[in-house]
Amino acid sequence: MKIGFIGVGNMGGPMCRNIVKNTNHEVAVFDLNADALARCVEVGGTAAGSVAEAVANADVVMTSLPKPPDVEAVALGPGGIGEHARPGTVYFDLSTNSPIVARRIAEALAAKGITMLDAPVSGGVVGAEAGTLAIMVGGDHAAFEAHLPLLRSFAANPIHMGDVGTGSTAKLVNNMMAFCNMAAAAEGLMLGAAAGIDLHKLATVIRTSSGNSHIFQKFGDRALSGQYEAAFALDLAYKDLHLALELADELGVPTPAGAQTHNLMRLARGLGLGGDDSSSVVRVYEQALGRSLARPSGRA
Amino acid sequence: MKIGFIGVGNMGGPMCRNIVKNTNHEVAVFDLNADALARCVEVGGTAAGSVAEAVANADVVMTSLPKPPDVEAVALGPGGIGEHARPGTVYFDLSTNSPIVARRIAEALAAKGITMLDAPVSGGVVGAEAGTLAIMVGGDHAAFEAHLPLLRSFAANPIHMGDVGTGSTAKLVNNMMAFCNMAAAAEGLMLGAAAGIDLHKLATVIRTSSGNSHIFQKFGDRALSGQYEAAFALDLAYKDLHLALELADELGVPTPAGAQTHNLMRLARGLGLGGDDSSSVVRVYEQALGRSLARPSGRA
Amino acid sequence: MKIGFIGVGNMGGPMCRNIVKNTNHEVAVFDLNADALARCVEVGGTAAGSVAEAVANADVVMTSLPKPPDVEAVALGPGGIGEHARPGTVYFDLSTNSPIVARRIAEALAAKGITMLDAPVSGGVVGAEAGTLAIMVGGDHAAFEAHLPLLRSFAANPIHMGDVGTGSTAKLVNNMMAFCNMAAAAEGLMLGAAAGIDLHKLATVIRTSSGNSHIFQKFGDRALSGQYEAAFALDLAYKDLHLALELADELGVPTPAGAQTHNLMRLARGLGLGGDDSSSVVRVYEQALGRSLARPSGRA
Amino acid sequence: MKIGFIGVGNMGGPMCRNIVKNTNHEVAVFDLNADALARCVEVGGTAAGSVAEAVANADVVMTSLPKPPDVEAVALGPGGIGEHARPGTVYFDLSTNSPIVARRIAEALAAKGITMLDAPVSGGVVGAEAGTLAIMVGGDHAAFEAHLPLLRSFAANPIHMGDVGTGSTAKLVNNMMAFCNMAAAAEGLMLGAAAGIDLHKLATVIRTSSGNSHIFQKFGDRALSGQYEAAFALDLAYKDLHLALELADELGVPTPAGAQTHNLMRLARGLGLGGDDSSSVVRVYEQALGRSLARPSGRA
Repeated sequence: MKIGFIGVGNMGGPMCRNIVKNTNHEVAVFDLNADALARCVEVGGTAAGSVAEAVANADVVMTSLPKPPDVEAVALGPGGIGEHARPGTVYFDLSTNSPIVARRIAEALAAKGITMLDAPVSGGVVGAEAGTLAIMVGGDHAAFEAHLPLLRSFAANPIHMGDVGTGSTAKLVNNMMAFCNMAAAAEGLMLGAAAGIDLHKLATVIRTSSGNSHIFQKFGDRALSGQYEAAFALDLAYKDLHLALELADELGVPTPAGAQTHNLMRLARGLGLGGDDSSSVVRVYEQALGRSLARPSGRA
Repeated sequence: MKIGFIGVGNMGGPMCRNIVKNTNHEVAVFDLNADALARCVEVGGTAAGSVAEAVANADVVMTSLPKPPDVEAVALGPGGIGEHARPGTVYFDLSTNSPIVARRIAEALAAKGITMLDAPVSGGVVGAEAGTLAIMVGGDHAAFEAHLPLLRSFAANPIHMGDVGTGSTAKLVNNMMAFCNMAAAAEGLMLGAAAGIDLHKLATVIRTSSGNSHIFQKFGDRALSGQYEAAFALDLAYKDLHLALELADELGVPTPAGAQTHNLMRLARGLGLGGDDSSSVVRVYEQALGRSLARPSGRA
Repeated sequence: MKIGFIGVGNMGGPMCRNIVKNTNHEVAVFDLNADALARCVEVGGTAAGSVAEAVANADVVMTSLPKPPDVEAVALGPGGIGEHARPGTVYFDLSTNSPIVARRIAEALAAKGITMLDAPVSGGVVGAEAGTLAIMVGGDHAAFEAHLPLLRSFAANPIHMGDVGTGSTAKLVNNMMAFCNMAAAAEGLMLGAAAGIDLHKLATVIRTSSGNSHIFQKFGDRALSGQYEAAFALDLAYKDLHLALELADELGVPTPAGAQTHNLMRLARGLGLGGDDSSSVVRVYEQALGRSLARPSGRA
Repeated sequence: MKIGFIGVGNMGGPMCRNIVKNTNHEVAVFDLNADALARCVEVGGTAAGSVAEAVANADVVMTSLPKPPDVEAVALGPGGIGEHARPGTVYFDLSTNSPIVARRIAEALAAKGITMLDAPVSGGVVGAEAGTLAIMVGGDHAAFEAHLPLLRSFAANPIHMGDVGTGSTAKLVNNMMAFCNMAAAAEGLMLGAAAGIDLHKLATVIRTSSGNSHIFQKFGDRALSGQYEAAFALDLAYKDLHLALELADELGVPTPAGAQTHNLMRLARGLGLGGDDSSSVVRVYEQALGRSLARPSGRA
């Protein structure tokens, strides 16, 4: 098969290279960043000069782009997939997109004979490099089944969620829960710290109790050591939560927990922490108390 | 050793019986409920006619009571532990108490030569019956060490947290996180339901992703099947969260996540759900959307 | 002057009729609802068969439409103002629009020589009938000045706020404050009711104290008498608050108060109160307490 | 009559002096602060050496103290009113007390023949000096009526609210509304600022529209000029809101708006603003946006 891959940044890059390495497909790659592009060509990809060139002869097109408007522009804009891909092309969008936008794109492309599936991934840069990403796919079931070997060449566990948009919905719901659990973890640890409890013992107890969460396990170590280099940057978490809340707004779903977390993120961004890890929401609490989780007996 | 055990209800009952069955200690039992008392006498405990009688000759006193004022009354009130227990008595309060109240009691009893430790348990009625409870202990370390065999006769994993009050603090922090994670789980599942996604697939994805939590795993099955019989009743969860927020108020810790969850619980209680399982907070969302998680395509 | 007026519903109708009655301008009217149209023709307006016909010869165009997409469709869609109004036309949008959409429309129309100003009104149906509306205008200052007599023919107090979009921003900010004050009023009155205080005395005190607000004065009487017929329907309030929060989201402004109120409104809509007055948010509290403000000693 | 007045600080001082100046009663004054005491003696009061001495021969006792525990200590503690005042004494507590504590005190004093009324005042230091305070009284109606001339000697508008505790409840409800309206005002103005609107024009519009509130009128000028010297300090506002939420907790009243405002205050206090005016909550928003309301086009 011929594959056109657009967007080879932090996430798209390793996914693209895993396809090149793990399959025999021809992969035409496009990115505005020449260095990112070069890293894919090094392992066997072919550089394309434009989106149009990358998709013109492709059987399968893939995009991995920062935000919904970027995807919409590449998919439906001038010089984009809709104009240049052939009827019969199958298109997987690997970005974290809005399900609303995903459905709009899929509908527009369907009119040109292109089958679009939203297929956001989960697992971070580490999972992308290791090929262990989870991938949640919404859209035509037969197209999903037919391309399982391709999906498995860069992701460990593809799962079909339903119609177009359901892949994105699953991703956004999961991430909203994760960020809310993060706020709960931060709030609980700060309460323990303010009460003068040994945080390492507290973390040990919670890890085996009803308060435990995936994010607490990750967050605990991080916050207790005061390490906030971005594993998943606050700005990206904020973007994902924003998309989740936009979806909730469209559907009229109350989101008291999500909205609280959203506001906490905004306050953390106001402290200049947008580029740090999303666990930096704890620093909003630290500032309000004048103490740090990492040094619970002193002042921040 | 002689043990005085006060309060043998849903939690205290099985704990007391496990001590009777698993040790050779003499256990004098008191409870206002004659049936509850009888169940402990059946397995070898001795009925006491009052708190005074239960504690007068005891080496160790234990209480398992509903609320902080109950504990304070039994510990410091007329006819209580402070008046009738001997100097040198060690007193473990197994209730979920406020750390503020626990410290107040410990200080008052210390003046009478009684060593009080707060030792709340975690694991529910099932864990109490099976003797697999976790137990978080605050107070004198030597007294904790000396009574480990006794604690292990009814709880699997005693952990010493620090000074008096730290056992309660750990319990309250853990539970606050759990209830916040519950709200996040409910909110996320309702968003998925409103977006028309298959909730069983969604739950499968989240269980292996960053949104997972101990409470989500319990809650998922429950909410998706519409089963809300109380494993841990909303009214009890509300009481625990209330104590956590009171502690936060005393310490000036912001609790945006906890306060949101507290209000959700109040709304759920207003719907008449206080006696149902704490996961009933999801029904506040269900009512706002006119649909049930258990029957996502219909109307509630 | 010749005026084209599109949208003569609950708000647009009385505004249009006041222009007809109070000026000598020729007013061509269009609305999909024949009855609404007829009521403007009765007083001297001319029925137009389409948007195109209403605006084709107009010096000034006005729209009063339910939602931003309606305005965008009439302004920029096929058969709309952009296609059929003449260069030099001045266009006042009297709807409560999003400032984001207002700027987008203004920019597109400017390319065709049409000057668009966003000019939302405040004062409700009563103010529209009486000609006492406030009107907040964003856009070209000279155009505002030149048309002051026209604006004053149906609104008491036109104020120029700044560039296009600032009229809408002022309206949305004002309404967000009003709805937050409404939630505060409801919450306070319920607290007073639950505490067993005489609500009429309480209202008297607050009206002369620091807790007073425009909305409290309106709301007090309404809630205390249990009258919730819509003066300003909850569904409309929800729409306005939604636009305010969308604007805040775009600008990264934290909105803890607004987001809480938004969620309260969703809960109230879930109770089936969307068509009732916006003060119905109090009934979310009433349900949580099982009592009504109007009958504080009984059950709702 | 003989009056014993305890607590002559910022609020109690001017109230006491107004009684001395405006009546012929003998006023025995006690305060731990000798300077404060001296200022009352200068105008004709008599210095007492203790609470006991101030109340021993009094017909009427008055207290104006910082917090509920201070009142409880002076009323019921050793050397206090309960021990030293005569049966038949009427006691007005002018502090902002908790209605829960007020009822507890009243009940204990009733057993000694002392009639206690809670009578918090509103109007600030300015109102206290000018004698224009509002005063909300809970307790025995005949005692209220009999002492109206005394109350009017330092407060403009005494109103009887109901049983003991209702005065405090009215004060707390009013203040909770005021602080929530403050948060709404701050949030709205920041949204306007972020949207680039002229804040003075915005304030003008809101003052005549549905978003207006007593607190907005005060707050507007303050925030727009960046003046945060305490008219009513954030720490005092926080204390009052805390009492209101404690009351709500006891009664099971949901307080989503109040709890949000409480958290905002905590964040502001974390920024070191507790001694500044309560309107400093706006600076939590300012920090999150990196801009000041007072200089909307620059950076904070």
